[in-house]
Amino acid sequence: MSQDFFAKHEATLKGALDAIATRGFWSAYPEAPSGRLYGETAAVDGEAAFKARLDKPFGLNQPATKAMIGAEMSPFGFALGITYPSPDIDGLMQAAQAALPAWRKAGPQARAGVCLEILHRLNRRSFEIAHAVQHTTGQAFVMAFQAGGPHAQDRGLEAVAYGYRAMAEVPAHSHWQKPQGKADPLRMDKDYHIVGQGVALMVGCSTFPTWNGYPGLFASLVTGNAVVLKPHPGAILPLAITAEIARDVLAEAGLPEDVVLLATDSAEAPLTKELALRPEVKIIDFTGSSAFGSWLEANARQARTYAEKAGINFIVIESVADIKAVTRNLAFSLSLYSGQMCTTPQNIFVPKAGIKAGDGHLSFDEVAAAIAGAVGKFNADPERAVEVLGAVQAQATCDRLEQARSLGKVLLESRSITHPAFANARVRTPLILAVEAKDAAVFTKELFGPISFVIAAESGRSAIEQATRSAKEHGALTAGVYSTDPAFLAAAEDLCIDAGVALSENLDGGVFVNQSAAFSDYHGTGANPAANAALCDSAFVAERFRVVQVRRHSA
Amino acid sequence: MSQDFFAKHEATLKGALDAIATRGFWSAYPEAPSGRLYGETAAVDGEAAFKARLDKPFGLNQPATKAMIGAEMSPFGFALGITYPSPDIDGLMQAAQAALPAWRKAGPQARAGVCLEILHRLNRRSFEIAHAVQHTTGQAFVMAFQAGGPHAQDRGLEAVAYGYRAMAEVPAHSHWQKPQGKADPLRMDKDYHIVGQGVALMVGCSTFPTWNGYPGLFASLVTGNAVVLKPHPGAILPLAITAEIARDVLAEAGLPEDVVLLATDSAEAPLTKELALRPEVKIIDFTGSSAFGSWLEANARQARTYAEKAGINFIVIESVADIKAVTRNLAFSLSLYSGQMCTTPQNIFVPKAGIKAGDGHLSFDEVAAAIAGAVGKFNADPERAVEVLGAVQAQATCDRLEQARSLGKVLLESRSITHPAFANARVRTPLILAVEAKDAAVFTKELFGPISFVIAAESGRSAIEQATRSAKEHGALTAGVYSTDPAFLAAAEDLCIDAGVALSENLDGGVFVNQSAAFSDYHGTGANPAANAALCDSAFVAERFRVVQVRRHSA
Repeated sequence: MSQDFFAKHEATLKGALDAIATRGFWSAYPEAPSGRLYGETAAVDGEAAFKARLDKPFGLNQPATKAMIGAEMSPFGFALGITYPSPDIDGLMQAAQAALPAWRKAGPQARAGVCLEILHRLNRRSFEIAHAVQHTTGQAFVMAFQAGGPHAQDRGLEAVAYGYRAMAEVPAHSHWQKPQGKADPLRMDKDYHIVGQGVALMVGCSTFPTWNGYPGLFASLVTGNAVVLKPHPGAILPLAITAEIARDVLAEAGLPEDVVLLATDSAEAPLTKELALRPEVKIIDFTGSSAFGSWLEANARQARTYAEKAGINFIVIESVADIKAVTRNLAFSLSLYSGQMCTTPQNIFVPKAGIKAGDGHLSFDEVAAAIAGAVGKFNADPERAVEVLGAVQAQATCDRLEQARSLGKVLLESRSITHPAFANARVRTPLILAVEAKDAAVFTKELFGPISFVIAAESGRSAIEQATRSAKEHGALTAGVYSTDPAFLAAAEDLCIDAGVALSENLDGGVFVNQSAAFSDYHGTGANPAANAALCDSAFVAERFRVVQVRRHSA
Repeated sequence: MSQDFFAKHEATLKGALDAIATRGFWSAYPEAPSGRLYGETAAVDGEAAFKARLDKPFGLNQPATKAMIGAEMSPFGFALGITYPSPDIDGLMQAAQAALPAWRKAGPQARAGVCLEILHRLNRRSFEIAHAVQHTTGQAFVMAFQAGGPHAQDRGLEAVAYGYRAMAEVPAHSHWQKPQGKADPLRMDKDYHIVGQGVALMVGCSTFPTWNGYPGLFASLVTGNAVVLKPHPGAILPLAITAEIARDVLAEAGLPEDVVLLATDSAEAPLTKELALRPEVKIIDFTGSSAFGSWLEANARQARTYAEKAGINFIVIESVADIKAVTRNLAFSLSLYSGQMCTTPQNIFVPKAGIKAGDGHLSFDEVAAAIAGAVGKFNADPERAVEVLGAVQAQATCDRLEQARSLGKVLLESRSITHPAFANARVRTPLILAVEAKDAAVFTKELFGPISFVIAAESGRSAIEQATRSAKEHGALTAGVYSTDPAFLAAAEDLCIDAGVALSENLDGGVFVNQSAAFSDYHGTGANPAANAALCDSAFVAERFRVVQVRRHSA
């Protein structure tokens, strides 16, 4: 049965394998929330499916359930009212362990087939998942559809492709024949068995439960591990739907459903530490705070942790051809999902003496005003603004926004916007502050949310030096540099490479520094404190399995 | 210049890349210490070169030398009298760091070319290295030549091939073109830069300084790291020669010599901990005790440690076709280098009710006596025996051998043999003891050296269960099973796969459980406590570099 899944999706896998070899544009799952692509009734059906989930227990038939819990609140202002299975951890681990031998023996092809079928079904359910992502993360609908649906599925498929390629590079058998001069050669037959590491724990985040979660989930699955999904208590539904689909596909393939298990907890009684310390857990994928990521690395020593933690992303504006194009681009980057992306720029460095702009010159204040003005204008129309800003996931972010006002000179106030469709939604526009280079104590902390600094630097050179020094010390996932000087760009490249931060140069069109495209852009590098791994490369999958050999004299 | 090295050795690299894809028999460097292969004067020249090293400072021109130290004693009974540079660690780290940018910018091809040229020159110096390995490790000459020379070089080349393949799988550039309906597509150009992690520390062992050291050295080098070689104080010379050759090649390639540095210490003033904790050190390769390996993993948290630690290897004899062929094979495995290989079997399980042997039956005592008898006979002729046994590297191993006598019923006494050529050599034959399955407290400790137990098990099934349980708990690098029953072999395979230990079945010819061939046999699995990595697979190289991308709108 599972071989059918492989055959059914072999062309998709082939496309993904080609894509990771060239890393040009490629996508398996259409990003437009369109009836033409997803079926005329898909939008209506998806919304209905989401609404049917509300205010009742989530029917996930899995073992070792101790209680049904859940207290998700939509950032758009209502309680989801869904409860999910919270596990007896001993029982959960037993179930996961028991599922491992059959999952290993199914082999790489069958496992890839199962993963591809799960992704296919997730894709067909993208509208339902979009609502689930919107009403847990606060992303506006179209973003929730794209980032939570097809883009996340592409990232999952990318992980399947890397895992499959890594396993395919290990021959299943070899014949070893060593010459012995005039005597008969020595002859051995050898089998190489791919063995998963054991149980993998995927710790989800509240802002991108699927986009940040699927790479680890699918990398672990395809390489032969069982996966426990531990969602953030505020964003359970997207991963619960994922677990439901995965378990269905496994059962249809005649494989143990318990290869994928959901472990729900609450903010009051978190389970992550206990799960992470279990000896059965050999792999942890985590997206979240630096403090907790470091705790995992320091304590869950029986496991390999792939952690994306906090970073402080930066922009350096040294010179521009067209300030309007630059600030239009930045306005979108700063506004998108109210700055709640791990890739949103926080620190914008501008030389205090101003910059060359086209044939003219702009003072620091003029550049700062241009940025603030562009962001203000971008969010002027509330109806349009909410479709980019979405809602703020956590009240703590609103509180932080409030407190941050005093950290610098306010260039643009954050406004609260009333959502036309959701009266109780937490909607906030970006806050932009001016500070000086010496105020590093203020801006070298991550201020998660729509909070940015325009920093008056000594010079372009000192700006890029300070920014990359901060990236080395505090981490950064993204960097943007604006310069019309090739020598400056070359120097910036060297410093960014040294700081291990992905660099975007002179983005002034329809590509944004905080967006990374699966199959082409690596998300994170693993080379600075913001993350110890990249989505997705060979290093992300290589240690999720081991090879055990058996050899004997040839018959 | 370095591009010439790549062109010069491209066919060798191609051969290695083909070999890792199929893992059949392949070797780049001839294992026979023959004048026909290495030049008619190679043997004499090599011995002369070794002797010319003795009793003087080793002329390694490297920075940050604080003192010249060294107290190597040949296990064959004389002092080497060579001193080596011991570093000022701050200066050493500065030198390594300073070498990194040029080494990164040289790129994968140039780095591979340098690695291949180093390996080529090491190969041409195999006779000199053989003497250096013999008189530090105690290996007999032919073994020192093969394991310390061509086999080690093959393992190094294997690491170069894995590293090169991993880097080659990352495209250097991509063009990303995303359709936008009727509008012009979005177009981006992207560069992907391979960046080493930083400084790598290779901590050498006293028994296989090159064989166990070259994989980490060359995996780190080819992927763009600088490498500090920290030899065991008892086996410095082989790695000093390696450093000398590496620095020569780097200089000829116009690259910084300090990409490879030697850090000599002494047993009285060890430097490994201080080196391992340096923030510059991002990779550690270690072969040695479980205690120190675990210390590195627990403390050198800024680095990724690839550790081969202690293991307790086992043999299970359930039934045999020909007991003589089996015990002849085991006699060599137990005698080779006096059991000082990390792959030597320690525990030999035999059912207490005896075994089926051909058409007959052998009691436990008969099997035990056959093993002891074969080992005794194998070492009966001292002149022949010393060419297999070699000498015992450390006095502690002789002491352990003395103390171990009381741990069971002596089946074969260890004898001290006078070496015909080296009167003061520490030569010992294997000690073999009989114990019962319940004496696990005795035999589940690693007793490094020529000490083996024949263990009376309840049954074949209980033997393989107990042995693999021990492998999961205490680690094991090798396992051997003898059985004429396909069902028993299948069950043993399952248990060994689960325990992450490489299995050899029914070895009764010219292949031995303690030998692993580069390009075909993985050494270690990383899946039990004996090692957290395998020599060599993709996981061994994948995290030694990172990818940093730079993107911009297409012109």
